[in-house]
Amino acid sequence: MAVVFIRHLPQYIGDRVTIEGWLHLKRSSGKIQFLQIRDGSGFVQGVMVKGEVDPEVFEAVEHLTQESSIRVVGEVKKDDRAPSGVELTLTQVVLIHPAHDYPITHKEHGVDFLLDHRHLWIRAPKQRAIIKIRAEIIKAIRAFLDSHDFTQVDPPILTPSSCEGTTNLFHTKYFDQDAYLTQSGQLYMEAAAMALGRVYSFGPTFRAEKSKTRRHLIEFWMIEPEMAFATHEDNLAVQEQLLEHVVAHVLAHCQVELATLKRDPARLVPVQAPFPRITYDEAIRLLQKDGHDIKWGDDFGAPHETVLADKFDRPVFVEKYPTAIKAFYMKPDPERPEVALCADLLAPEGYGEIIGGSARIDDPDLLMKRFEEHLLSKEDYAWYLDLREYGSVPHAGFGLGLERTVAWICGLEHVRETIPFPRLLYRLYP
Amino acid sequence: MAVVFIRHLPQYIGDRVTIEGWLHLKRSSGKIQFLQIRDGSGFVQGVMVKGEVDPEVFEAVEHLTQESSIRVVGEVKKDDRAPSGVELTLTQVVLIHPAHDYPITHKEHGVDFLLDHRHLWIRAPKQRAIIKIRAEIIKAIRAFLDSHDFTQVDPPILTPSSCEGTTNLFHTKYFDQDAYLTQSGQLYMEAAAMALGRVYSFGPTFRAEKSKTRRHLIEFWMIEPEMAFATHEDNLAVQEQLLEHVVAHVLAHCQVELATLKRDPARLVPVQAPFPRITYDEAIRLLQKDGHDIKWGDDFGAPHETVLADKFDRPVFVEKYPTAIKAFYMKPDPERPEVALCADLLAPEGYGEIIGGSARIDDPDLLMKRFEEHLLSKEDYAWYLDLREYGSVPHAGFGLGLERTVAWICGLEHVRETIPFPRLLYRLYP
Repeated sequence: MAVVFIRHLPQYIGDRVTIEGWLHLKRSSGKIQFLQIRDGSGFVQGVMVKGEVDPEVFEAVEHLTQESSIRVVGEVKKDDRAPSGVELTLTQVVLIHPAHDYPITHKEHGVDFLLDHRHLWIRAPKQRAIIKIRAEIIKAIRAFLDSHDFTQVDPPILTPSSCEGTTNLFHTKYFDQDAYLTQSGQLYMEAAAMALGRVYSFGPTFRAEKSKTRRHLIEFWMIEPEMAFATHEDNLAVQEQLLEHVVAHVLAHCQVELATLKRDPARLVPVQAPFPRITYDEAIRLLQKDGHDIKWGDDFGAPHETVLADKFDRPVFVEKYPTAIKAFYMKPDPERPEVALCADLLAPEGYGEIIGGSARIDDPDLLMKRFEEHLLSKEDYAWYLDLREYGSVPHAGFGLGLERTVAWICGLEHVRETIPFPRLLYRLYP
Repeated sequence: MAVVFIRHLPQYIGDRVTIEGWLHLKRSSGKIQFLQIRDGSGFVQGVMVKGEVDPEVFEAVEHLTQESSIRVVGEVKKDDRAPSGVELTLTQVVLIHPAHDYPITHKEHGVDFLLDHRHLWIRAPKQRAIIKIRAEIIKAIRAFLDSHDFTQVDPPILTPSSCEGTTNLFHTKYFDQDAYLTQSGQLYMEAAAMALGRVYSFGPTFRAEKSKTRRHLIEFWMIEPEMAFATHEDNLAVQEQLLEHVVAHVLAHCQVELATLKRDPARLVPVQAPFPRITYDEAIRLLQKDGHDIKWGDDFGAPHETVLADKFDRPVFVEKYPTAIKAFYMKPDPERPEVALCADLLAPEGYGEIIGGSARIDDPDLLMKRFEEHLLSKEDYAWYLDLREYGSVPHAGFGLGLERTVAWICGLEHVRETIPFPRLLYRLYP
């Protein structure tokens, strides 16, 4: 009898199947035992009735402990009340390996305890659901980009220097040289866009920031698309279509996981393009009207972003920030050079900026001027300056923060649960 | 008139279209100018005949330099001799930005010069083809795993310690702690397999080895699938099906790129499952028969791997190496504990090991014994030992080296061209 994955059980209704997995939860009414079995692909309830199975098997099941590994045989029955759509009538339960005193019980545990046991915590239904949705989000992002003429390009993780100072960078010795862990692959992706037109990266990035907020990780994953011959408008259109596609994919493929997380899908249904757009100027006025002490030229803090995002039922673009508070490579608006052709995309419900993007400076003279203003090394970045020497073109791109996107779509309180093994301030274990 | 990507031109035969891109190459017969235009999505030849266009346009094109960025308008004509299947009859050519003295001419350049100019070198047809095939290989790997019940899980890059010594690791300060860049996500993937059943990672790994061979990179990407409830046999079956799928995908989708690389597809056609299997014992006997000075218990060097692989037209599994020369976590063959339930997959044509995999020790006592034999820290790896405490199950997995796979499929001499920005001994720029 072939071993079947729990998620495929609805295809086996009426059949006797074998499942290999772990005992997640057990309750008993004396005569009937209910086993919640998990195999990684899903959860299913197995039912064992006294008198209908070998008494020794029934007796052994009574002593089965949480997270013991088991092999069970049972008949698949349709059950519309079950999240999996089926139930198993168990006839055999074989213990593979017992688990004694599994540390994560079905009681409440503190976050530090859970993070110390992250290698086990990921077995919990909620954590498994998050990892599953994260994987589906990744799949949807890649499917969208692959089908829109983008080519994946992997920028380097070890880089020789940083454009914006080394204070927030992780340093390592690279043989006789100094190297830093990448904060963003963007500059490399600009080189790649000149070679392949439309490109995207998908990889880890690092910020050695001593900040402890619910929105920050030390190690996090970014998707950074970059497009040759693209404008600010093209850039926003790709972003909103991409996110519309991602949310629709999750709604279509992750109903069970969203239910596990008690995430109301209705909050995600409005996420359709076009997204609302407000300018930085308008945002400042809105905040001032709401009584915030902020003036033109200031950057937004997390509370400001939340106030702005709360005015909309889907992500909102805040565009054209002052050039002075944005990165050196952003292209100024030709009609109003004090603002940049850039936008941050703020997620609803207080999840903050999930995308930052801009048109990039394509004029070699202006880029050189910016290098001088920002005291950047023309030698370290000679290769980047080369991109404007040899067939410079208008281009634009953006960076999507994976973990914040997962946090928002899953409706999580803290970004630490969005990644299998979070790296937080002072936390490097397991 | 909409801008069209070159790769979509076959859909526009007979139409007038705009292309935005760069001048790759130009030749002239005086009356006719032939422009090789690239836009990242592909290459196309544009033809401009004197007398049929504005004389000023014709004159301007005569002065157009390599890698200048241009916007051209032309009529799409079917041309079966062209790799793109079409040709453009040009009516307009507008210069966007001139490139003067582009460093990479159509002459030969030394490898150091090309690596110094990697940010430009990737624009060359051969380099673009490699990056494109790399992206298609990634796509095929993920499509196979996604459709075979695997879930992507991203293991951490920054890790607190290493199981096998720190000499080949990159070190960084993680606030007040020491951290190392991952060499493999496997141990974390084992934890993930206990939570999600079948998982795979796709990410960068690092080896600070002072080796300079055509098979090694300092920073390289690995795909590491891990399966709960899987045997050594299951493991090999997934590997050969995966590679069969990847090669078939490349043959189906990358004909133009393989032709650019002058890679004969006939070398890839035989790559179908099942793959031949020889044991380590047989491999030693074969090598001895061929006159190699090697005895049972020795590990193979690159020349040995090439000799073995050359006996087959597709990748070959060498299985059941001596336990003593393999990693501590490999499960011994129960029938013959001096060998492990492991296999290396050797690519044809001297490309060496592209996959290493094994069943993992699931017996807690044996794993503890191995920790003692290898003087590993039970404290640092308490979390890993936990996986055998709480519902241990038979499991297996493998690691596929992306760059070696790309080198083999593309038929490249050196692995350095398989990644957009290679990190080599002493090379960290650009």
